[in-house]
Amino acid sequence: MSDTIDLDAAAGFAAELADAARPIALHWFRTPLDIERKGDESPVTIADRAIEDELRARIRAAYPDHAILGEERGQEGSGRYTWVIDPIDGTKSFITGLPLFGTLIALADAGRPVLGVIDAPATGERWVGTAAGTRFGGAPARASGCRSLAEARLYTTSPDFFDAATWPRYDALSRKAAFRRFGGDCYPYGLLASGHCDLVIEASLQPYDFMALAPVIEGAGGVITDWEGRPLTIASGPRVIAAATQELLDEALGLLNG
Amino acid sequence: MSDTIDLDAAAGFAAELADAARPIALHWFRTPLDIERKGDESPVTIADRAIEDELRARIRAAYPDHAILGEERGQEGSGRYTWVIDPIDGTKSFITGLPLFGTLIALADAGRPVLGVIDAPATGERWVGTAAGTRFGGAPARASGCRSLAEARLYTTSPDFFDAATWPRYDALSRKAAFRRFGGDCYPYGLLASGHCDLVIEASLQPYDFMALAPVIEGAGGVITDWEGRPLTIASGPRVIAAATQELLDEALGLLNG
Repeated sequence: MSDTIDLDAAAGFAAELADAARPIALHWFRTPLDIERKGDESPVTIADRAIEDELRARIRAAYPDHAILGEERGQEGSGRYTWVIDPIDGTKSFITGLPLFGTLIALADAGRPVLGVIDAPATGERWVGTAAGTRFGGAPARASGCRSLAEARLYTTSPDFFDAATWPRYDALSRKAAFRRFGGDCYPYGLLASGHCDLVIEASLQPYDFMALAPVIEGAGGVITDWEGRPLTIASGPRVIAAATQELLDEALGLLNG
Repeated sequence: MSDTIDLDAAAGFAAELADAARPIALHWFRTPLDIERKGDESPVTIADRAIEDELRARIRAAYPDHAILGEERGQEGSGRYTWVIDPIDGTKSFITGLPLFGTLIALADAGRPVLGVIDAPATGERWVGTAAGTRFGGAPARASGCRSLAEARLYTTSPDFFDAATWPRYDALSRKAAFRRFGGDCYPYGLLASGHCDLVIEASLQPYDFMALAPVIEGAGGVITDWEGRPLTIASGPRVIAAATQELLDEALGLLNG
């Protein structure tokens, strides 16, 4: 069992990790098709691995007794604390030049997310969340306070990430929202933390996709759970729902499961 | 009948219009909910009208014998040349803080689009297209050269913009693409002009949505038509398809109509 760490220091370290990831992501973003590459790898594959390797090296050096779970290289080590990394969330955004892809960095304490970073390298935006609050560009971020589905601005990434069982549940719920929008990957969770949208629902997220989102949403006063209303842990997924308020979450869960 | 204008000068003027629109859009983007407003109008409604009024005043002063068609205020005047304006394309992006909304400015000569500007105020990006070529941030933009649907990166804004007749046609086609993505409004047309995606298909566009897109796509070497393969005019719509190459367009149209 590791000693309890200083979460403020860890948040500063996570921001340094995001700083280190940005130039790598931007080097490969909108790469001309004729640029020299290793083998036949796509720019996003190269960027994904290069970022994850860089962040793993830094984590090992700073917290040698912490475990690491990354999208590209899997699990490394074990223990109380696990860093969870998605180097490029929004692969299809990245490979089509859309600037809303993100780097996701989370710290889990016994499987529960206690620190999250959503970094958007191409827009230069960053959300950092802990139990002490969520900050966006250095200022506090607050969810909207929307309590009613009829007034809720709803996001999901794509209808293609639902299946025959989950789509009808999402579809019925979403038609009662103020409106529904598609696209965005991690970015709408940042928008929710900043009060610009009210509800985000996804049906196929992995731990490296959602672990960083939870502290950002909760630190901004929002709520995020699985579709059964349970808090997220590293063993949760793939169905995730985030809402600006508990009342909005309850109404949405009632419709999803009703 | 107006005299023939200098298209390079008109392109410079259109860029000045986009410069004038940006600060108005950004003033109202991500507006805190408690900000003082005129009546009960939403920030996007206020921004839409303020931008359109500003651009109309500038066009009247510079080209008093030109007509104007805008999303908010309709048709004004008549004659050989018509300026076509969508002050905020991507209303739902705008009101949810998503930075990919755009200002669209086109010039039509006898109904045919001859100059187009796609401006993205929140990212600071701009595409300007004429028969002389398309420029992005001052440099030439070129479509990808993709000739095969199987390799095509496909965008559309939302499944909700299709109906029971058009969705199955889009759906069948899109499943043969390399992948399909949702979201974006005008922004993916800029990505296509810059070679980052290859195909964009929409089923419910108005003239102020698509007139600015055509010169940007065509000036970058791409093609854009209605779903019957006809060139776009101010009387076209609502179904529009843009592709990186004629071969890709032909394959897509064959499937849409097959």
